[in-house]
Amino acid sequence: MRPIDALVNALPAGRVVTDPDVAASYARDRTFVEPGQPVGVVLAASRDDVVATLRWAGEHRVPVVPRGAGSGLAGAATATEGALVLSLARMTAIRELSPADEIAVVEPGVITADLDRAAREHGLMYAPDPSSYEISTIGGNLATNAGGLRCVKYGVTRDSALGLEVVLADGRVLHTGRRTMKGVTGYDLTGLFVGSEGTLGVITSATVRLRRAPAAPPATFAAEFGSLRAAGAAVSAIMAAGCQPSLMELLDRATLEAIDDWRHIGLEPGVNAMLIGQSDASDGQAAVERMERLCVQNGASFVAVSSSPQETEELIGVRRMAYEAKERLGACLVEDVCVPRSVLPEMIGAIEAAGARHDVRICTVAHAGDGNLHPVFIFEHGLAEPPASVWAAADEVFTRALELGGTLTGEHGVGLLKRRWLALEAGPVTREVQHGIKAVFDPLGILNPGKAI
Amino acid sequence: MRPIDALVNALPAGRVVTDPDVAASYARDRTFVEPGQPVGVVLAASRDDVVATLRWAGEHRVPVVPRGAGSGLAGAATATEGALVLSLARMTAIRELSPADEIAVVEPGVITADLDRAAREHGLMYAPDPSSYEISTIGGNLATNAGGLRCVKYGVTRDSALGLEVVLADGRVLHTGRRTMKGVTGYDLTGLFVGSEGTLGVITSATVRLRRAPAAPPATFAAEFGSLRAAGAAVSAIMAAGCQPSLMELLDRATLEAIDDWRHIGLEPGVNAMLIGQSDASDGQAAVERMERLCVQNGASFVAVSSSPQETEELIGVRRMAYEAKERLGACLVEDVCVPRSVLPEMIGAIEAAGARHDVRICTVAHAGDGNLHPVFIFEHGLAEPPASVWAAADEVFTRALELGGTLTGEHGVGLLKRRWLALEAGPVTREVQHGIKAVFDPLGILNPGKAI
Repeated sequence: MRPIDALVNALPAGRVVTDPDVAASYARDRTFVEPGQPVGVVLAASRDDVVATLRWAGEHRVPVVPRGAGSGLAGAATATEGALVLSLARMTAIRELSPADEIAVVEPGVITADLDRAAREHGLMYAPDPSSYEISTIGGNLATNAGGLRCVKYGVTRDSALGLEVVLADGRVLHTGRRTMKGVTGYDLTGLFVGSEGTLGVITSATVRLRRAPAAPPATFAAEFGSLRAAGAAVSAIMAAGCQPSLMELLDRATLEAIDDWRHIGLEPGVNAMLIGQSDASDGQAAVERMERLCVQNGASFVAVSSSPQETEELIGVRRMAYEAKERLGACLVEDVCVPRSVLPEMIGAIEAAGARHDVRICTVAHAGDGNLHPVFIFEHGLAEPPASVWAAADEVFTRALELGGTLTGEHGVGLLKRRWLALEAGPVTREVQHGIKAVFDPLGILNPGKAI
Repeated sequence: MRPIDALVNALPAGRVVTDPDVAASYARDRTFVEPGQPVGVVLAASRDDVVATLRWAGEHRVPVVPRGAGSGLAGAATATEGALVLSLARMTAIRELSPADEIAVVEPGVITADLDRAAREHGLMYAPDPSSYEISTIGGNLATNAGGLRCVKYGVTRDSALGLEVVLADGRVLHTGRRTMKGVTGYDLTGLFVGSEGTLGVITSATVRLRRAPAAPPATFAAEFGSLRAAGAAVSAIMAAGCQPSLMELLDRATLEAIDDWRHIGLEPGVNAMLIGQSDASDGQAAVERMERLCVQNGASFVAVSSSPQETEELIGVRRMAYEAKERLGACLVEDVCVPRSVLPEMIGAIEAAGARHDVRICTVAHAGDGNLHPVFIFEHGLAEPPASVWAAADEVFTRALELGGTLTGEHGVGLLKRRWLALEAGPVTREVQHGIKAVFDPLGILNPGKAI
C-alpha cells in the first residue's frame, strides 16, 4: 500500500485527488513560479478532515502545502515536489454573523467578497479587500495577512482577526483569541498565525471583526498628473491635511497604457500618473472636494469627482483592471515594497531608474496612502524563470526600498518569491527567533516548508 | 564578591540600587499584591545597560522583573523574592517624531501623555490613552497592550505599535517590525512582544504610529439613567446606529457615590448609571446629538451635551476620578473582564448579583463601547490578601464572563493576579504552545517568571 492510500482510507470518500493532472491544477498560485508535482490533493470539507490529514502527514513525514483559492502573489501556496496539497476551498460556511456584536465566524474557504456582501445585509462590512477579493478566500487572506484598497483607512487582515481555530502539525486543535473587541490573556497567537503562510498550522475557522458600513455611497475622485512625482506630492498633501481617504491608489503611465490598450479608456498624451481617491465618511463629498483642491494645487491637469455609485464604479474600475491588463503583456513578477509615505516619490523614481537601467518594462500601481507600491516587472511568457535583467532590476528596487526605511513586502508575503531577499531585511537574530517559533509549532517541519521565513 | 557586585561593576556608576528600602520602593505595581524583596534595582539609562543587565542575570540565573512606572493593575511588574528589578523609567527620549510619516521612535520610559502632547504640536496624536496615561510609560503600555478610553475608536496599544527594539534574555538585540504602515516579512514578532508582560524580552525602543489629531475639540455628552440595564441598552443602540464614538464610558451608582463622597458632584438619588460619550469626528456635534437622542429613547433621565473644552473636561473629569475615588474606600481588587458588547447588560447584572450574594462592595466602570468592564472589589486596607468573599465574588464574575463568550482581561493583563483563573480560559494546548514560545526566547526562564502565561 502506498502511503497516500492510508490517507484515502482515513478520510471520507472523494476527499483525496491523486490523478496527477488534476493534482497539478492545485499546484500553482498566481505567480510564474513552477511548482513541483504533489503526491495528491486533499479537498478538506471539515476540521476533522484537516486533523486526519495532518496526522497522516506527520506519520509519513510528507510536507503539506495548505491553499485557499491560489490567488496569492508570492508563491506561498505553490506546491513543492512530493508535497501533499491541502485545499480549504470547500470549507465555505459562514457559521455565524452577529450584527449586535459586529463579528462573524467563518470557515477558511469563504470568498472574501461573499463575507462582505453577507455583512452588508446587516448594515455592516468586512473591511479587508485585496484586489482579488472576488476570488480569494478568507483563509488565504489570513495566511498572508492580505491588505487591499480600503486598508488605508481600515487596516489589514490582521486588524480584523479576533480569534482562530487552528489545527497544529500533530493534529491537535488550538483555539486562539476571542470573540471580544479587546483581550490580553496570554501571548497574541492570533496575530502570530495571521501572515504565517501556513507554516505554523492550518486555520479551520476564524472569528473576524465586522464594521459599520458607511451609510451613503463613497465619494470618489480621479486626478491626472504630468508626473508621478507631482501625484506623490498630492498624496502627501492629502494625508497631511487629515482627509482620511478610504482609498488612495496611484497608477503610472505604463499601467495606464496597458489598461488603455485593452479597454480603451481614452488615455491622453502627457498623463503620466493617475491618482484615485475615495472617502466613505459621512461628510465624504466635502472630503473629496478638499482632496480635489489639493490635487489641483499640486499640478493635476484634470480631476473628475463623482458621488454616484455608477460613476464611482467606472473610476475605481480602472484600478481594478490593472493586474489583468498587465498579465496580457507578458509574465509578471509582481513586487510589493512598502516605504514610509514621505519617500513615496523617491521610491517611484528608483523604480523608474531601475527599469530604464536594465531595460525592463515595469508597470507600477501603489496603495499610495500606505506607501505600498506594486512594481510589476513584465517578461516574456513561457520562460521558466524571469531573465537576469528582471532579477537585477528587482534587486535594485528591494535594496532601495530597504535603504529608504521600507520593507520587502507590504501585503503579499514572502512565500517562495521573496526568500532570496529575506536576509536583506531580517538579520540573523530575527531569523533564528522565527525558526525557533516555527519549531515549537512544527517540530517535524512538515507545514509548508521553505516558505515565509 | 556578591553576584550583585559584578553587576555594579558592569554598569556605569549609579545605575544599581541595592539599599533594601529604596529597592522595595520599586517592587510594587498599583495592585495590593505583596512583592518579594528584590536583590536590587537597575535604573537603566540605555540599551547597553539593559544588555549588560540581562547578560549578568543569565550568568547568575537571577530572575529579572522589568518595570515602567509601576502603574499596572495585574501584578506584572510586582517584584518576586530575590529578583532583580529592571526599571526603564529613565529612558525617556523621544528619538524621532516624523509628522510626514506619522510615526515616532521612543524609548520605553516616555510618559504616554508626554508623547501625545509632543505629537499634538504637529497636529498629530498618540491614540492609546489608558486612564493612567499621565503617569504610565509607553514601555509599560506595550508590555501590557494597554487599552484606554479612546480605544473604542482607535484600537489598543498593539494597533499603534509598528516596530520594536528588544533585548533578548541572552543580551542579543532583536529588531522587529518596521517604520511602514504595512509589512508582512516573517512572523509578527512586534505583536507577540506587545502584551507579553516582559516575559519574552525587554523593549528598549518602539516605533509607534501617530494619527491625525481631530481638527476641533470633541463634542461630549453625559447621560444619567435609572438603571444600568437602560444605560447598557443605550450603548447598544448608539453602536448599532454607527455613531462611532471616540469614547463611551459607563459608571455605576457605587462608583458615582465614591466620586460624590470625595468631590461632591451633586449626585441625585435615583441615578444608578452614568454614560459619558464623545465624538471627535468632523461632524462630532451632530453625532453627539444623535447619541443624546438615543439615550433619551432608552430612558435617560438627564443628558448634558457640551462642545466647549472646559465643559468637556468637567464631564470627562468625573470618569478620570473613578479609580482614585475607589482607592479612598479601601484596598481594591480591580478586574477587567471583556464580553461581546451585546451581553454587556447581562454581565453587569452578574456583577451586581455576585456582589450581593457575597456581600462585597463592587464599583464598576466600563469602557462600554468595547464591552470591557472594570468591576472593582473593595476590601479593608491593610489585609495581605483579599478576604475569601472577594475571591468568591471574583470567581463568579470571571466564570460568567467566560460563559458569555468573554475574556478574563480586556486590557490590564494577566500578571500575577489573574493566573489563578487562567486555566478557565486557556486550555492545555494553548498553555503548552505559550510555554513553548516562552522557551524560545528565554530558555533559562529568567524573564519575569511566573507572570502572564
